[in-house]
Amino acid sequence: MAPRPTESNEHTPDGLAAPALADAMRRALDLARRGPARGVNPQVGCVILDQTGAVIAEGWHRGAGTAHAETDALSQLEPGAARGATAVVTLEPCNHTGRTGPCAQALIDAGVARVVYSVDDPGEHSRSGAVRLRAAGVDVVPGILHAAGEALLGSWLTAARLGRPFVIAKWAQSLDGRAAANDGSSRWVTGPEARADVHFRRAAADAIGVGTGTVLADDPSLTARTSTGTLYASQPTPVIFGRRDLPESAAVHAHPRRPVRLDGHDLAADLAALHAQGIRSLFLEGGPTLISAFIAAGLVDEYLIYLAPTLLGGSRTAVTDIGVGSISDARRLAVDSVHTLGDDLLIVARPKGHS
Amino acid sequence: MAPRPTESNEHTPDGLAAPALADAMRRALDLARRGPARGVNPQVGCVILDQTGAVIAEGWHRGAGTAHAETDALSQLEPGAARGATAVVTLEPCNHTGRTGPCAQALIDAGVARVVYSVDDPGEHSRSGAVRLRAAGVDVVPGILHAAGEALLGSWLTAARLGRPFVIAKWAQSLDGRAAANDGSSRWVTGPEARADVHFRRAAADAIGVGTGTVLADDPSLTARTSTGTLYASQPTPVIFGRRDLPESAAVHAHPRRPVRLDGHDLAADLAALHAQGIRSLFLEGGPTLISAFIAAGLVDEYLIYLAPTLLGGSRTAVTDIGVGSISDARRLAVDSVHTLGDDLLIVARPKGHS
Repeated sequence: MAPRPTESNEHTPDGLAAPALADAMRRALDLARRGPARGVNPQVGCVILDQTGAVIAEGWHRGAGTAHAETDALSQLEPGAARGATAVVTLEPCNHTGRTGPCAQALIDAGVARVVYSVDDPGEHSRSGAVRLRAAGVDVVPGILHAAGEALLGSWLTAARLGRPFVIAKWAQSLDGRAAANDGSSRWVTGPEARADVHFRRAAADAIGVGTGTVLADDPSLTARTSTGTLYASQPTPVIFGRRDLPESAAVHAHPRRPVRLDGHDLAADLAALHAQGIRSLFLEGGPTLISAFIAAGLVDEYLIYLAPTLLGGSRTAVTDIGVGSISDARRLAVDSVHTLGDDLLIVARPKGHS
Repeated sequence: MAPRPTESNEHTPDGLAAPALADAMRRALDLARRGPARGVNPQVGCVILDQTGAVIAEGWHRGAGTAHAETDALSQLEPGAARGATAVVTLEPCNHTGRTGPCAQALIDAGVARVVYSVDDPGEHSRSGAVRLRAAGVDVVPGILHAAGEALLGSWLTAARLGRPFVIAKWAQSLDGRAAANDGSSRWVTGPEARADVHFRRAAADAIGVGTGTVLADDPSLTARTSTGTLYASQPTPVIFGRRDLPESAAVHAHPRRPVRLDGHDLAADLAALHAQGIRSLFLEGGPTLISAFIAAGLVDEYLIYLAPTLLGGSRTAVTDIGVGSISDARRLAVDSVHTLGDDLLIVARPKGHS
């Protein structure tokens, strides 16, 4: 059920104007951002309005195992104070008993008269909160500030809809598409600003993926480091695709998170396994064989192509074969943005037609 | 002799202030642009000031075989009217008798007291006008608005300094550096806006270059066409590199200019031959073998890389081998600008260290 945007100047049945609800939703989105941006649970915010439209409580979700935004907000009110109120939530209230009870039921129990939300919950187990609310006689208004709500949830939403991590494919190449010179040397294709940007983005991902070939050739640590070499507080779980044995001495074994091994023969199954382990975003760094296999399988959601202002020629292309035989089968992307990073360029793109 | 910029607020010996001379030079640069931008001769403009700094004559060069800017300006004055005047010229007056006499002598004969110019004449036969002027007692001030003068002359100046055409290497590629899909299909890698930009730039070049392989594979017409398919007024001479025979029916034989054949075994010699034929800019369009040979030989002055937002993978790279063995030997470029053309990007770059 795709929610319809409701951003016009209409009044809802009891007279709270749509602009007042949009203001409350903007506040709820702002609260949501206080929660952690990665991991299993989404960022969610909630504002509770009394019948005059005044804010009587606010809440947000602080991460897996803590209260959901709705119960966080309700917990600030005296018993009975939410009766007849409007709850404004960034995500459809859940209908699922996990480490916490279903939020839909908590709102019903509190006597809330109306629930306004931005984005439908895509979760297999958590969806249908709106159905439960309506069945209990609660007025439900979906789709308020829908675009802003989707933008906030970003890769979490893609992961929830697809049941696999959001996959970001990153590579550095010369302008002519080479990841290394003919002798295999590749340090460095891009400059320090581009490499710092990569580390910053690594820190925002749940996992970082490479093939065994890259581990054997480059012995990367797969940590996210600041430009002075210290570790970011948040580190992606290293995921190594492929069947080859790795030496005990491989740098990745010193990673603060235990590496995950996957055989790479069925990438969709591998991604489902990562999702089942709570990984919602995968930062895929290479090498060319692994990146190309993900592209060929249609499993890349975002491309980060770091372009160095050099030409290398030769055989070591950053992308190898992706199953395109003819120009009409080209894998089409939409460029979201182009950034300058020192002497390099960063092209951010996504599969054409994906939002 | 590199001229020194003279853009401060100094006064010249007879009291004409530097800002007044800079104003006159800006006017001369503006006049220069009225002349043709391609071909053997540069765009040149001239302003003549009397002893009070008032403009008494203006001139510009209209193309090979017509008066040079200085004589064009002097021709507007009564005999004797230039005595004691200041001539402000965008390029050092020539010291060469070609289809016209040396401008330096014409200025001396007119009794001009001072010559102010922007850019030294780099021509083997035409240089040293300043020496002749000084020997005749004329005060010579070089380097006024030097950067603007160089920018106006652009590729003509490079060609004059190197004794070969200014070489622009253009190719279209996917983001991963492919010029075609595995089956050879390449129509179209880029969209209509990018292709229109290519045709517009073709029309500004003296010559357009391809290898015999491209003629045999694609049968291009090598004309410069508007988006409605009509020919631009100005057409580049087709130049075909390589020894293979071409069929009588090849589209290039219908080109409004007679194709030039060069064997491509000594590219520097080929370029010298084109220069001797009056070609000052070469728009090099491919294919990958020819482009890569020019890059490997260090004979590219400007790169136009049209980047389509697609991935192709496979074997048909836009650049093949350019003699780079190790990353430290990468051919380094400086990106001048990045443009959006429809869905495509255009990266304009030049060899790092070239101005």
